[in-house]
Amino acid sequence: MKKAIGIDLGGTNVRAALVGSDGSVIRRLKEPTTENVFDTLRAMVKELSKEGVEGIGVGAAGLVDKKQGRVILSPNIPSITGKGFDEIGDGLKVYLENDANAAALGEMWLGAGRDFESFVLMTLGTGIGGGFIHRGRLLNVSAEVGHMSVEQAGRKCMCGGSGCLELYASARAITEAVTKAIEGGAESILTQGNIYKLTPEDIYKAAFEGDNLARESLREAGRYLGIGIANLINIMSPDAVVLAGGLTGAWDLYIKEAIKEAQKRAFKSLFDRASIIQASLNDDAGVLGAAYLVFHGEESYIC
Amino acid sequence: MKKAIGIDLGGTNVRAALVGSDGSVIRRLKEPTTENVFDTLRAMVKELSKEGVEGIGVGAAGLVDKKQGRVILSPNIPSITGKGFDEIGDGLKVYLENDANAAALGEMWLGAGRDFESFVLMTLGTGIGGGFIHRGRLLNVSAEVGHMSVEQAGRKCMCGGSGCLELYASARAITEAVTKAIEGGAESILTQGNIYKLTPEDIYKAAFEGDNLARESLREAGRYLGIGIANLINIMSPDAVVLAGGLTGAWDLYIKEAIKEAQKRAFKSLFDRASIIQASLNDDAGVLGAAYLVFHGEESYIC
Repeated sequence: MKKAIGIDLGGTNVRAALVGSDGSVIRRLKEPTTENVFDTLRAMVKELSKEGVEGIGVGAAGLVDKKQGRVILSPNIPSITGKGFDEIGDGLKVYLENDANAAALGEMWLGAGRDFESFVLMTLGTGIGGGFIHRGRLLNVSAEVGHMSVEQAGRKCMCGGSGCLELYASARAITEAVTKAIEGGAESILTQGNIYKLTPEDIYKAAFEGDNLARESLREAGRYLGIGIANLINIMSPDAVVLAGGLTGAWDLYIKEAIKEAQKRAFKSLFDRASIIQASLNDDAGVLGAAYLVFHGEESYIC
Repeated sequence: MKKAIGIDLGGTNVRAALVGSDGSVIRRLKEPTTENVFDTLRAMVKELSKEGVEGIGVGAAGLVDKKQGRVILSPNIPSITGKGFDEIGDGLKVYLENDANAAALGEMWLGAGRDFESFVLMTLGTGIGGGFIHRGRLLNVSAEVGHMSVEQAGRKCMCGGSGCLELYASARAITEAVTKAIEGGAESILTQGNIYKLTPEDIYKAAFEGDNLARESLREAGRYLGIGIANLINIMSPDAVVLAGGLTGAWDLYIKEAIKEAQKRAFKSLFDRASIIQASLNDDAGVLGAAYLVFHGEESYIC
C-alpha cells in the first residue's frame, strides 16, 4: 500500500499523520504551533517518513499560491507567510493547499461529504474557512468564506476588510463577545473564572448549564453564521453544507440558530435541497485531505 | 456552418438570435416581455428556424432546474415560473440555463472574458445576476450573487431573504433611492420630470450634468456593489470580474466607486490579480451564450 504524510497547519496545533492510500491513519503526531514551526515540521516528517512515503501534503491556514508552492498570507500563523515547504520534504514532493480546502478533500474522501456530488465545507474555529467540492473534485479557488462581508458598516478585520463573517460567527468572536459583555456588567456564571482566558468550550458548558449570556452569545453568532450559510447556498447551490470544527459541538444553540437563519434568508428551493450536516472526521480531516493530494495530485482538482 | 437559436429571457425584452457556430449573429429579433411570453417565443422560433438550426438555447432570468428543463422561480418574469421550454422547440432540442450564466458563456466565447482562465460575470440591471467561468467552462451552480446578504439587518427582499446586494446596488435600487430622496425634499434637476418613471439613464445623465443627488445615489450603490465584488474575489479568487448591463455606462461614478470599495475590502493579493473590466458583447451576450450551449452541450460545463 502507498503511503503519504499529511500535515495540517491549521491553527494552535500542527498535526501530521502517516496515511495509507486506503485512507487508514497509520500514525498521528501533534505539536503546538510555535514560531519555529519549520523545525517542528522537519522533525515530524523525519519521524513519519521512516516507513517509506510517496510525498507530503500540507494544508496551511491562509492564502496559498499552489503554483509557486508558497503561502501568500497567513494571519493566524505569521511565521509561514511568504514561505514554501519544499525544504521540509528532504527530496520528497510537497503538495500545498489551504487548510480548509484540504479538510474539504478529507471529508469528501472519507467523511460526511462522501455521499454528496457537491458540497461546501465550512471550518468553524478561531477563524472561519471554506472549501468547495464539485463532483468529487476540489474547486481550485480561495474559498475565504469567513471573509464575506455581512455587515456593510461592520467592524474592521485583520484581513484589511470590514464586516467579515468571522468577526461575528467564529470561536474568537464568541469568546470576545462574552468577555466584553461581562466587562460591561453582564451577569454570568463565567465571571467565576478568568474572563480573559475563556475558551469556546467554557462558553458551551455554561450555556448547557443554562447561563443566559453564554446562550445568547452562541445564538447571536449562529444568526450570523446563518447569513454566511444562506449566501453560500444562494451562490453555490450545493447538495450539502458540511460544518467542521470544535464549535459544531454547540449544535443545539449555535448551529440550530444558524440553520433557522439560513432558512429565512436563502432561496427556498436551494435551501430545501441542501443538507446541513456535521463533518465526521474531526481532527483527521486536514491530514487525510493533505494525503489525498499526494495520492491524486492534479486529479484532486476540477479540470 | 452549424446554426442555433439563442434566446435571452432576461427582463423587459425577449431577445432571440440566429447564431452561427463561428459566433456570427445572422439575425436578431427583439420583443417586449409580456404575459404571453410563450406566444412571443414560438413566433420568434418559427421566424428564425426557417433557415435550419441545430437546437435552441434559452437563458432565463431566475433559478432554473437544468435536469428537468424548467424554471423553478423567476421573480422578474412570474409567467415562466414552473415552466419548461420544450414546447417552443417544435421538435428541436432545447437547452435551458439561467440568463446570467448564459451571458457568462457568451462573454467567455466571444467577449471580454476570452483572455481569462477564470472569471466572475456580474449582470447589473433591474436585478443583479452572476455566472462563474473556470478554465473555459461554466460552473454549474446557481451563482445568485445579487442575493448575497450584505446588510445583516437589511431590507426585506422579494426572494424571501433580507439585506440582499441587489436591494442596494441594482438599477432598481438606484432609481428607488432617488425617487425616495426627492419625495423627502431633496433637490435635484430630476424633479423636472415624472419622478415615478425615472430610468437609470435619466439618473446617469443628471449625474453627468452635475446633479448631486444623482451622483451620490450612484456612488452609494457603487459602494454596495464593491462589497459584492470583494466578497466574490475573496471566495472565487477569479482572474477577472466582468461587469455587464446598462449600469456599466455609469462607469466613472458607480463602477469606479465599486472598485474603490472592493479594493478596501478584498484580500490585497486576490484583488491585485483580478482585473475588473466591462463586458463587451452588450445585449448579444445572452443570446450568444445560449447558442453556445446548443453547440457544446454538456461540454459547456465543468466536469
